[in-house]
Amino acid sequence: MSTGYLYEPLPDVENGIRLHLNEHTGGCSPAVMEAIGRITREQVAWYPAYTGATRACARALGVPEGFVLLTNGLDEGILTAALALLPRQDASADAVVVEPAYGMYGPCAALAGARVVATTPGADLRFSIEEVRRAVSPATRLVLLSNPNNPTGEWIPHEAVRDVARLVPPEAVVFVDEAYADFAGDTFMSFIETCPNVLVGRTFAKAYGLAGMRVGCLVGVPALVHRLRSAIAPFSVNVFAAVALEVALRDRAYLDAYVEEVRQSRALIYDTCRRLGLPFWPSTANFVLIRVGDARAVHETLAARGVHVRDRSSAPGCEGCLRITAGLTRHTRAAMAALEEATCAGQG
Amino acid sequence: MSTGYLYEPLPDVENGIRLHLNEHTGGCSPAVMEAIGRITREQVAWYPAYTGATRACARALGVPEGFVLLTNGLDEGILTAALALLPRQDASADAVVVEPAYGMYGPCAALAGARVVATTPGADLRFSIEEVRRAVSPATRLVLLSNPNNPTGEWIPHEAVRDVARLVPPEAVVFVDEAYADFAGDTFMSFIETCPNVLVGRTFAKAYGLAGMRVGCLVGVPALVHRLRSAIAPFSVNVFAAVALEVALRDRAYLDAYVEEVRQSRALIYDTCRRLGLPFWPSTANFVLIRVGDARAVHETLAARGVHVRDRSSAPGCEGCLRITAGLTRHTRAAMAALEEATCAGQG
Repeated sequence: MSTGYLYEPLPDVENGIRLHLNEHTGGCSPAVMEAIGRITREQVAWYPAYTGATRACARALGVPEGFVLLTNGLDEGILTAALALLPRQDASADAVVVEPAYGMYGPCAALAGARVVATTPGADLRFSIEEVRRAVSPATRLVLLSNPNNPTGEWIPHEAVRDVARLVPPEAVVFVDEAYADFAGDTFMSFIETCPNVLVGRTFAKAYGLAGMRVGCLVGVPALVHRLRSAIAPFSVNVFAAVALEVALRDRAYLDAYVEEVRQSRALIYDTCRRLGLPFWPSTANFVLIRVGDARAVHETLAARGVHVRDRSSAPGCEGCLRITAGLTRHTRAAMAALEEATCAGQG
Repeated sequence: MSTGYLYEPLPDVENGIRLHLNEHTGGCSPAVMEAIGRITREQVAWYPAYTGATRACARALGVPEGFVLLTNGLDEGILTAALALLPRQDASADAVVVEPAYGMYGPCAALAGARVVATTPGADLRFSIEEVRRAVSPATRLVLLSNPNNPTGEWIPHEAVRDVARLVPPEAVVFVDEAYADFAGDTFMSFIETCPNVLVGRTFAKAYGLAGMRVGCLVGVPALVHRLRSAIAPFSVNVFAAVALEVALRDRAYLDAYVEEVRQSRALIYDTCRRLGLPFWPSTANFVLIRVGDARAVHETLAARGVHVRDRSSAPGCEGCLRITAGLTRHTRAAMAALEEATCAGQG
């Protein structure tokens, strides 16, 4: 947490099955390719306009336009939230990170000058309002959590999120990272207007297959969005992302089919884990956390077979765990075959 | 400076001649369009790899690969430099902004928690080492200047930049924003290896016509680049930018032809200014600062005629000034005709 690194850059992966970054393993919608194919040389040379993409995003999320701020991927959204909402030069401002968590929260809060307070997850890694209550203090200015959780895939009920929003000091904001909410089929959006201290982050890198585009958004009441604008450059989202987003949001059929395939992939992963006797966390996202034992060894064995997964064993409470993306079922089948060989080899 | 806004977002411009953001008014190289047309649906859905683009960038700039960090436009580069190089929670850290300056320096330094010390430009707006010396103190940790200067277009000699690097405290870094250096045909790059406390920023938004892509870079000795990595997300540049950059850097002929056309456009602007009796600053960049008098009125009159320029009258020392992009000569001719009408109408 105190290294200052936002997170260690991973080595480039050139070949094999990419199940390490929770990407859409089937690629983006063909409609996106068609739309970006019409972008002109002049548009490439102009700073982008965001009116159309912002409007489309608000409509798709079911909130008014003034509630949405587009960001260069949700990574930029997290940094923007930290810089805008954590009072600078106030060394007594706390950011509470609900662990286990996505690796960017702590470093972004530290970059903003805050003291990072991490919750201690229980053995089951489940969300615990008691743990959050213990970490929150009068100095808390930001609470960061992900829903579904990354890396467990647990869905936190809306009522629990609202409990967090109620128990923090009045100046504090609760950041709910919904990067994987499309896979859960649920969202906090309908409560946004009545929860002025909740900020929801979304990305279109996952279910919409736009990771290479870098586009996400922050959603909150206009007063909150106004504060966020103070910490983000005016042209951070590129023109391809702006054009792609409008089209991707319209192609509901492509999204729905992929969400269904991800569900099937999760089931395949659960089956394999049960057969191999590996503990796993039932997930509402496009990944599954599995306790494989010697995570580093299994990770390397899988990589040698061209299956790239994420070693999460250094995350709080995640000792011995790998996180595997659930995408196209053919990728999942290949990965499960490799996992079976890797873990049996380890036992042999 | 203290508003916290990085800078006020400008309204979208839908029609007319865009001479307000110093874009490439002719569009990017056709070779770029060809290359990005080969990007696949899968690449759109993957987090990008930067090895190829970083290598190409280093080669084009004539520095080793480890000296280069790609950024999501130079705007992200400025924020990254401020966050990484200004010690957080040290309220006594100063950032010196050499005015007149690009509008992002002060707000980014303030976001990083620093005290912003702006130099006071003389009536001629020229770079003054004496002014910098007056602003620098033992608390200085970052000095930000642009070369060529924005908005005057003045080229600061390398020896003056090295003087700045010598007069700051040993912990301080001098950030040299070379966003427009391609038009000046000069760069600090060959001194980078021997100036460990100088960080150069570049953007490919201007001479290379990639503003819509969002891609720039920071260049410094590896120890400096290492510090910068602590304050930037690992996937901030999008895949279209990464692919485009490699190709754009190879198309030297396209760059050279545009730099020559910009030179012709500047000459056209100077001619008009002399004829109209308007003071202007001879520029080495793709824009010219002109003192038109009632800048706001002339700005509005030009906009009504479909010519969008930038009102810089609120910048320190720039009272009554507009900044006009020098791009394609046909755009410049149209803009100069409109300027002539606007200023004569104002006098009539």
